Amino acid sequence: MDALRRGAPMRRMTVTAMRKMVVPVWVLVSAVSGLQEDGMEELATEKEAEESHRQDSVNLLTFILLLTLTILTIWLFKHRRVRFLHETGLAMIYGLLVGVILRYGIPATSYHNKTPPSCSLKEGPVSTVLLNVSGKFFEYTLKGEINSREIHNVEQNDMLRKVTFDPEVFFNILLPPIIFHAGYSLKKRHFFRNLGSIITYAFLGTAISCFVIGNLMYGVVKLMQAVGQLTDKFYYTDCLFFGAILSATDPVTVLAIFNELHADGDLYALLFGESVMNDAVAIVLSSSIVAYQPSGANTHMFDAAAFFKSVGVFLGIFSGSFLMGAATGVVTALVTKFTKLHCFPLLETALFFLMSWSTFLLAEACGFTGVVAVLFCGITQAHYTHNNLSAESNTRTKQLFEVLHFLAENFIFSYMGLALFTFQNHVFSPIFIVGAFTSIFIGRALNIYPLSFLLNLGRRHKIKGNFQHMMMFAGLRGAMAFALAIRDTATYARQMMFTTTLLIVFFTVWVFGGGTTPMLSWLHIRVGVDPDQDQQPCADSFQVLQGEGSQAEGQSKTKQESAWLFRLWYTFDHNYLKPILTHSGPPLTSTLPACCGPLARCLTSRQAYEDQLRDHDSEILRNDADLTFTFGDTSITSNGASGGGAAGGEVGGASGWSANGKRSGSTSEEALERELDSREQELLSRGTRLVFPIEDHI
Amino acid sequence: MDALRRGAPMRRMTVTAMRKMVVPVWVLVSAVSGLQEDGMEELATEKEAEESHRQDSVNLLTFILLLTLTILTIWLFKHRRVRFLHETGLAMIYGLLVGVILRYGIPATSYHNKTPPSCSLKEGPVSTVLLNVSGKFFEYTLKGEINSREIHNVEQNDMLRKVTFDPEVFFNILLPPIIFHAGYSLKKRHFFRNLGSIITYAFLGTAISCFVIGNLMYGVVKLMQAVGQLTDKFYYTDCLFFGAILSATDPVTVLAIFNELHADGDLYALLFGESVMNDAVAIVLSSSIVAYQPSGANTHMFDAAAFFKSVGVFLGIFSGSFLMGAATGVVTALVTKFTKLHCFPLLETALFFLMSWSTFLLAEACGFTGVVAVLFCGITQAHYTHNNLSAESNTRTKQLFEVLHFLAENFIFSYMGLALFTFQNHVFSPIFIVGAFTSIFIGRALNIYPLSFLLNLGRRHKIKGNFQHMMMFAGLRGAMAFALAIRDTATYARQMMFTTTLLIVFFTVWVFGGGTTPMLSWLHIRVGVDPDQDQQPCADSFQVLQGEGSQAEGQSKTKQESAWLFRLWYTFDHNYLKPILTHSGPPLTSTLPACCGPLARCLTSRQAYEDQLRDHDSEILRNDADLTFTFGDTSITSNGASGGGAAGGEVGGASGWSANGKRSGSTSEEALERELDSREQELLSRGTRLVFPIEDHI
Repeated sequence: MDALRRGAPMRRMTVTAMRKMVVPVWVLVSAVSGLQEDGMEELATEKEAEESHRQDSVNLLTFILLLTLTILTIWLFKHRRVRFLHETGLAMIYGLLVGVILRYGIPATSYHNKTPPSCSLKEGPVSTVLLNVSGKFFEYTLKGEINSREIHNVEQNDMLRKVTFDPEVFFNILLPPIIFHAGYSLKKRHFFRNLGSIITYAFLGTAISCFVIGNLMYGVVKLMQAVGQLTDKFYYTDCLFFGAILSATDPVTVLAIFNELHADGDLYALLFGESVMNDAVAIVLSSSIVAYQPSGANTHMFDAAAFFKSVGVFLGIFSGSFLMGAATGVVTALVTKFTKLHCFPLLETALFFLMSWSTFLLAEACGFTGVVAVLFCGITQAHYTHNNLSAESNTRTKQLFEVLHFLAENFIFSYMGLALFTFQNHVFSPIFIVGAFTSIFIGRALNIYPLSFLLNLGRRHKIKGNFQHMMMFAGLRGAMAFALAIRDTATYARQMMFTTTLLIVFFTVWVFGGGTTPMLSWLHIRVGVDPDQDQQPCADSFQVLQGEGSQAEGQSKTKQESAWLFRLWYTFDHNYLKPILTHSGPPLTSTLPACCGPLARCLTSRQAYEDQLRDHDSEILRNDADLTFTFGDTSITSNGASGGGAAGGEVGGASGWSANGKRSGSTSEEALERELDSREQELLSRGTRLVFPIEDHI
Repeated sequence: MDALRRGAPMRRMTVTAMRKMVVPVWVLVSAVSGLQEDGMEELATEKEAEESHRQDSVNLLTFILLLTLTILTIWLFKHRRVRFLHETGLAMIYGLLVGVILRYGIPATSYHNKTPPSCSLKEGPVSTVLLNVSGKFFEYTLKGEINSREIHNVEQNDMLRKVTFDPEVFFNILLPPIIFHAGYSLKKRHFFRNLGSIITYAFLGTAISCFVIGNLMYGVVKLMQAVGQLTDKFYYTDCLFFGAILSATDPVTVLAIFNELHADGDLYALLFGESVMNDAVAIVLSSSIVAYQPSGANTHMFDAAAFFKSVGVFLGIFSGSFLMGAATGVVTALVTKFTKLHCFPLLETALFFLMSWSTFLLAEACGFTGVVAVLFCGITQAHYTHNNLSAESNTRTKQLFEVLHFLAENFIFSYMGLALFTFQNHVFSPIFIVGAFTSIFIGRALNIYPLSFLLNLGRRHKIKGNFQHMMMFAGLRGAMAFALAIRDTATYARQMMFTTTLLIVFFTVWVFGGGTTPMLSWLHIRVGVDPDQDQQPCADSFQVLQGEGSQAEGQSKTKQESAWLFRLWYTFDHNYLKPILTHSGPPLTSTLPACCGPLARCLTSRQAYEDQLRDHDSEILRNDADLTFTFGDTSITSNGASGGGAAGGEVGGASGWSANGKRSGSTSEEALERELDSREQELLSRGTRLVFPIEDHI
């Protein structure tokens, strides 16, 4: 293992590498690589530039072939119904193999063995330096600091350096499509039904996990220092930072299997929602911890002012990014609503794509976190804009981001495999690694079990024991942990963290990912749930893998949970936001007070009125079904007649919707959920209708 | 105009700009911008880096908003059926406006006004330099040479510099998706029917155009030197290079209108095919001319050896790129044929995308031209792989590349608009500009009219006068001319060329693009052609805009044209390539000699046999229709019974196809074409079938 340690400052390496090989792969496309060498061909030796450009192409080609191989093997696995290895795990294995070949298969010759010329400066490092070469001036930019030991082989190990990407590539290019897709493909109904729990796990749980891991690791570090295994600095904030990195779960493997086996929708929503949200929390948490660091100066002790500043930074960045993402989503929804862009799916798709991308840039430009903004943009787009798009654009956008997501994710995982052998500054510390493995399990346990207990106090549908075990088991680490860890590998501590994170990702993806199917069966978690059948509220007749269901207890308890918050939001969303932002929902003329009449008429689209007329007929039928469902349920709550429907009924012909509005206020939240769902289905059917718009001749 | 001249060396500017703002936009995605500033935050002043990153985000955001605005306006235009301005023209106008604002609206303050520190070196410029700052070593890389006048404002005019991209971005990121899409969306039937003419226009025509423009411009340059308007060097090879740049036509506006109005399919194919192929020819031609340049040393006179070397370079690069592209296409076809990947459209689409991209990298790695390789890869993919993909993947890949193409194209055009005001080294020379405008018309005329005359000697379906005028008129310049011109703007001559090219693009896109609809009507070119009706060979009853059709002469002439070549290729393709590479065509067992039996059986897919059985029933019917068509035509050729069908009939049950094979050899080439077409339709229907593959349970 020690052979892998080289002690060269990492920061330099990765920064240089980016210069050498900028690989812009949001959609994993393009070969900017070597552009700049090309540009200088007249100045630097042309041959060198050309050689470098070719080398870059070859390297990129390596990755592409890796991905191609992964795709083909994955097809074989899917074809043969092999489930123990997910595509991401496979991508890692192939990456590992190529890494081994690159490292040991190719003799580490360097084609430039000379030491570059050097000159001295008095001032500190500046970004731009001028060089006077016999009267001509040349501009040079800072690449990074290099170790004095390394001076003589700056150009050495080019092969290994070349396949290293700038860490920011992961953050700014590969993560956004993954995160956006997560937000955009969220299964709304289950997600919103479990919103309270998801937020609890994501915020409170991630914080718990971060602090537990951080504190345990601080103990491990102290132990290492005691036994003389660690001589470099390793502060408490470093430990917390490590905790934040490792708090981002990524159960992509587990969820893929859930999807394939049609496992329980609520469990899926809990896991998926948690992992999506805790990515955002982990990013912001880690930057808040970094923001804490410098204020402690040399002491690195607890400082109340700095702590609250960090908390403020956390809240500021998080809410800012959230607002930014939501705002772009709302703007896109408004644009797609008030133009008849849906006649031209290409334009619509392009617009959707550009607007979603602009969220990222906007957030970055304002100093917020682009990745987090993109997540909330995705959720908003799915909730509102999606309803305004034509059916074709809906498919197009979904497929476009699906491909981007697929390629980006597999690229990251195959890069992880590669990095284990090509990254030149690994720090393998057995104690640290064992400590990290132990503390992530403790951290996960202290996150899931206590929070589930607390949540169950409030939840009507309890999170059962087997669900909790499954959530505990699904604490995989993936792309986000890796991207956060590789972002800064300048110090010894960070290098140790990076190596350990890599190993944790490998282990969890392979072992836990591979063990998902047996675990599901062992925990008696029902699979093969028909999504349509699942919509029935009477989900008591579970279809478990081996008979026996342990969910009898607590099923009949009647609780209001945090449903009042949900109902408030739902009513607001249904009565005001949806009608304003989409073609669906009740006309604003029936939900807004009479004084806002002109505004309401202007904002309500013609489709809403048409729907209203159409819905009026089917209303009785639906109410009928509602009654059946409501009485079929053991619990009927009769409170909560607040909300929108107050102003309804006065605008011509709006009685159908106003009745509806009142109804949604007066039945149990299950009816709410069901309506949320039927609305979803209705919108799907509307999507189809929009392809041949009625008002085309305006 | 002179205010725009600054005389700073361009090369430096663009190279720097790339550093500042790498915008990887194959799929116009990602914000790598400022990555590198980020990476160095610990070394360079952090504030500066952050500021720079934000600035980059803002700049990219500008472009995104520009594109968004373009999309919305385009929608409005399409909605109102406005045809005088195409989206590309509009993108240019918006770019122009933003350029004006950036240039004149924002005070040109520089936030760094200090001169960077400098030191001296004895040796020539090297790519890497070490700086010793009080014991610590820092690595610096070469950015470019800067003018000694410019030393004191290296960091000035940051705003304008920032919105400048590295020219290679256009070449390596934006052009590939455009060109690939062109190849992939080629309308096969019309393209192959006019292949001979298209190749003539593309190769001979581009060469004529290049030399005519080059020579005329040399005259203009001599004139300018005579009247004292030009003091810098401007060699004959520079003129030829300019000719090559301006020989790449890009009638995107015209073709969009053709598409919308359903103009004549053959004219569309001629224009589209010519423009696609001459892009490839122009790229290779320009690099061949550059390859010629250095060997002439100081004389820049004609040198037979250097000339033939250039011709060799041309042939080598062109054929190499062609083979590379075709090879990747063939490999993709084989992979998609022999795996049952079509059950998983996502995997299939990802594979298709990666393979197509790898062509580009492969060609670049081998020293060929990636863009040209990508074109032929696109054509091969459309011809073979497309048949193996599932219906869903067919749609997905088409739509994916459509979006990429759309975004890339509009990005280039809006950048062109922007560049007119933000590019800081324009050289406006009225004489040169007038000369260039004149010579492109002369060059186009000497390309179209003489070649059409020659082609008409051999063609059965003459290229009529009005078609020739339309082709003359459709000599627009666009993205390719721009990308070639901006690639190198280091010398005064090149800067003059760039400015002139920009103006030519503006003029042709706006004036000729806008005049397409009136021109169509004025030239009596038929529009509203139903593509299905167009498939009837009896296209004599043209539906012209104002009655009168001038195509009576020469219609009844019976000529073999270059049809023997076409027939040879068609037979080979139909009997061997298609069966090997796709699921369609006659089973190889019936077309290959008996000795290759085992191989043939191994290569033929089960679908081919099934089709054969199915086709056997419909064979009589189709042959019947054939007879009608054949007798309906005035000319029946009875030769050409060569080709594949010889070995047919001996392998069990293959009689249907072997009869078919013989038939295709023995009727006129119109029957061939029709079959080519029916084959196309059949494959479409097969595509639908593949979604539910029969052999899924293997």
